Amino acid sequence: MERTGFRSITAATGEPAGEPLATHGVADVEAVCAAAEAAFDTYRSIDNEARAAFLEKIGEEIVALGDTLIETACRESGLPRPRIEGERGRTVGQLKLFAGVVRRGGWMGLRIDPAMPDRAPLPRPDLRLRMIPLGPVAVFGASNFPLAFSTAGGDTASALAAGCPVVVKGHPAHPATGELVAGAIRAAVKACGLPEGVFGHLVGPGNELGQALVQDPRITAVGFTGSRGGGLALVKLAQAREVPIPVYAEMSSINPVVLCPAALSARGAALGTAFVGSLTMGAGQFCTNPGLVLAVEGEGLDAFVSAAAEALTQAEPQTMLTGGIHAAYERGLQDLSSHDKVETVARGKVGEGVARGQAAFFQTDAQAFLADAALGHEVFGASSILVRCRDADELAAVLKAAEGQLTATIHMDEADTDFAAKLVPVLERKAGRILANGWPTGVEVAHAMVHGGPFPATSDGRTTSVGSLAIDRFLRPVSYQNLSAALLPAVLRDGGPGDAPLLLDGTLVAGSAN
Amino acid sequence: MERTGFRSITAATGEPAGEPLATHGVADVEAVCAAAEAAFDTYRSIDNEARAAFLEKIGEEIVALGDTLIETACRESGLPRPRIEGERGRTVGQLKLFAGVVRRGGWMGLRIDPAMPDRAPLPRPDLRLRMIPLGPVAVFGASNFPLAFSTAGGDTASALAAGCPVVVKGHPAHPATGELVAGAIRAAVKACGLPEGVFGHLVGPGNELGQALVQDPRITAVGFTGSRGGGLALVKLAQAREVPIPVYAEMSSINPVVLCPAALSARGAALGTAFVGSLTMGAGQFCTNPGLVLAVEGEGLDAFVSAAAEALTQAEPQTMLTGGIHAAYERGLQDLSSHDKVETVARGKVGEGVARGQAAFFQTDAQAFLADAALGHEVFGASSILVRCRDADELAAVLKAAEGQLTATIHMDEADTDFAAKLVPVLERKAGRILANGWPTGVEVAHAMVHGGPFPATSDGRTTSVGSLAIDRFLRPVSYQNLSAALLPAVLRDGGPGDAPLLLDGTLVAGSAN
Repeated sequence: MERTGFRSITAATGEPAGEPLATHGVADVEAVCAAAEAAFDTYRSIDNEARAAFLEKIGEEIVALGDTLIETACRESGLPRPRIEGERGRTVGQLKLFAGVVRRGGWMGLRIDPAMPDRAPLPRPDLRLRMIPLGPVAVFGASNFPLAFSTAGGDTASALAAGCPVVVKGHPAHPATGELVAGAIRAAVKACGLPEGVFGHLVGPGNELGQALVQDPRITAVGFTGSRGGGLALVKLAQAREVPIPVYAEMSSINPVVLCPAALSARGAALGTAFVGSLTMGAGQFCTNPGLVLAVEGEGLDAFVSAAAEALTQAEPQTMLTGGIHAAYERGLQDLSSHDKVETVARGKVGEGVARGQAAFFQTDAQAFLADAALGHEVFGASSILVRCRDADELAAVLKAAEGQLTATIHMDEADTDFAAKLVPVLERKAGRILANGWPTGVEVAHAMVHGGPFPATSDGRTTSVGSLAIDRFLRPVSYQNLSAALLPAVLRDGGPGDAPLLLDGTLVAGSAN
Repeated sequence: MERTGFRSITAATGEPAGEPLATHGVADVEAVCAAAEAAFDTYRSIDNEARAAFLEKIGEEIVALGDTLIETACRESGLPRPRIEGERGRTVGQLKLFAGVVRRGGWMGLRIDPAMPDRAPLPRPDLRLRMIPLGPVAVFGASNFPLAFSTAGGDTASALAAGCPVVVKGHPAHPATGELVAGAIRAAVKACGLPEGVFGHLVGPGNELGQALVQDPRITAVGFTGSRGGGLALVKLAQAREVPIPVYAEMSSINPVVLCPAALSARGAALGTAFVGSLTMGAGQFCTNPGLVLAVEGEGLDAFVSAAAEALTQAEPQTMLTGGIHAAYERGLQDLSSHDKVETVARGKVGEGVARGQAAFFQTDAQAFLADAALGHEVFGASSILVRCRDADELAAVLKAAEGQLTATIHMDEADTDFAAKLVPVLERKAGRILANGWPTGVEVAHAMVHGGPFPATSDGRTTSVGSLAIDRFLRPVSYQNLSAALLPAVLRDGGPGDAPLLLDGTLVAGSAN
């Protein structure tokens, strides 16, 4: 490692804090990946209880960082204290969630088809299957969740839960936060007696480090949360390798919100006010920010727009994560506000200081939106566009033309049921999560959550990056045919699965406890 | 459709049979894909029982084709009658297997996390998850299994089971067989009252049709079994689309067989004879053909080689699937036999007539094998190379350097347990299936089967193309948050899952029957 001009930046001032930081070079990637590879067979062999305890220990070590972590993350991200405290809780909570998943053992996907030695014309062999981890995983954290989607975030937690060593490329927008969390993980590795290579951490600005990491032959999968450009660049690198590897990139979504007619009539104004709350939360810097609103023309819609405009005009400016993100946000708003088919409904208050986001709400009509794909591109930050539709058919046409999304939201009353029911099959094909009468921001970390969706929301719409199903991304099946007990993995020996679910000759046995 | 010079070829003579065949052009792809897309929402909405009955009906219609199907497949493939009869049984069997999988409902991956309205600081929403089918799937059948891996083969069965309409690009090596089977599927579609677009069939020579199919925006995934070059070309096309899609290509494998020392000492000669049986089965035209044998030098190995040479010398010539496959096989053998570090152990009998494969067995040493990656490339047909190793470490080094494989085999006695146990972690990372004291040819269609493996065995080592787990390739998760019962899919309503397994708040409930 060497000291360069790389610094931790205080988001609210744009000024560096502390000394120049030690950074890694491309040559360090080699050593870190070699250690991860060397640790893999040991780490994947420890039992489920030991792996679960390790995940919980990481959570404890993060909590033990105390206020230093909270203050550092607030300073580097510009996000307010309650948000960062909540995010720490979520980070620890998802580690605990995966500890539970590892203990219950469903992730192993155990299957046994017993031998049928007397079957005619040919005997059936004894076949046993389990999921095994892929190998070392590279994780690229997000700037907008410096804890929950970063160093010890969802990708790291799910990959470690699967039994994969993790190499994190620390996000350059919060290097001090990242180093604190990396230290907590290293402490947990040590406390649990695991090989050091179970966790690696690469620090530095620019793209070279990350590129070298994805190209390293020992890396077997990549988790990424960030921009579409960044995600697609990593996908391209991964596909060009001698052995291509999967990239799980969560990239771009404008999260359509449909306002149904009866709901608009009954409470258009209330919806407008609530919408602005979701739009401006965290300076709009959520993957699930409601960037597209769809509704049929009418008095209810006018009430929605008026209330939204009034609320937005009062919206306080908020510090954005980095100067670069703020500049991209401003460019996006400029493109929309100067578009000749787009009207600016309202802007938030102008801020003083660097990187202050001034929220924006635009409107256009369906024909204009359908005619220009650029109007459907994500502007990361508090920006949303209302598409006014003539009728239900035009609204459905806009949804059908939309790109893949993380979420799709329906605001409806009971009288809207037919209107909404027709949209559900369309939305299922467009999004990973469909929600009613809520707002897409705020992603519950749970078993039935999907934070994923068709391209370009993610690079692989068959998966989720939040919730316990995320562990499946880092596993692959192996079948064992006629292996003696001595050679079989312990969980596949007769009586070995314990309480873990088992598909026995095609029938699910939910564990011996059932 | 138009009539061109495209003909059905009799494999044993290389002569065309029957009239020129009607073929599709690129323009037909548009209509077939539009029909598949139009059929999708209807097909995915029918209940599990109706979908299962459809799969079984396809099997019945195939059986109803009677001897015409058997004779046509034998003529076009050059494969013997018992083999084709067995393959028909397997084809019908895997349709039945998937019917059972569809009925049991585990494929839906149902999850419910009930709402916690009183949770502090924030209430938990009601979250429900199911897997839904991706959409229309393109299937490219294999030449070497004109029934079980072709028109109504494993990819078609698993995609239809998942709820995806299927468009098959018929294999040009068996167009008459393909058309018979396509007719059987169409009859089943009609008998079950399903939209015609549930199954499409494109017929023609050359690559253009298939390329247009993969590029059609309505196609959402691709199943392929064939050559490495063909598979990689489809992967590249799929990745270059505006919306990239997954390609499940099963491509290339030489299926290492490890002969452990004690087993070799005890029964080296018997192993040699049995090996030749596996090597020459079906003219060696199996993805799981044992193309690489690894053993430590010794008397047992010499006995193995002598017995194998003796058996191989007696091996009858066999008609290969096509003239093109035979020519590529001959080129591969020529490269090996002219290699200065490779010795030809034995060849089978020379055949009379076109496309007769003359089986071959070669040997080299570990250092030569490690020095030239070309020695590890698949030669499709009855060809295998023995790599003689000085000791266990050298043998492990060869395995570690090998490419990804479909299978890895260990022949062992009890005294070999330590020797073999050290190899298992290496083999798990190289192959999708590990088997002991058997031969890799002969893939059981079962729940615990994996016919897949790390690149380049397949383009996606996280999956299998044989066995019930193959259905997962064509599914993606959707989460429903706070949706009213009227909007929820029936299986996710309270009491809706019936006997299907359900992950309720993280705990698996194996269906109400349990």
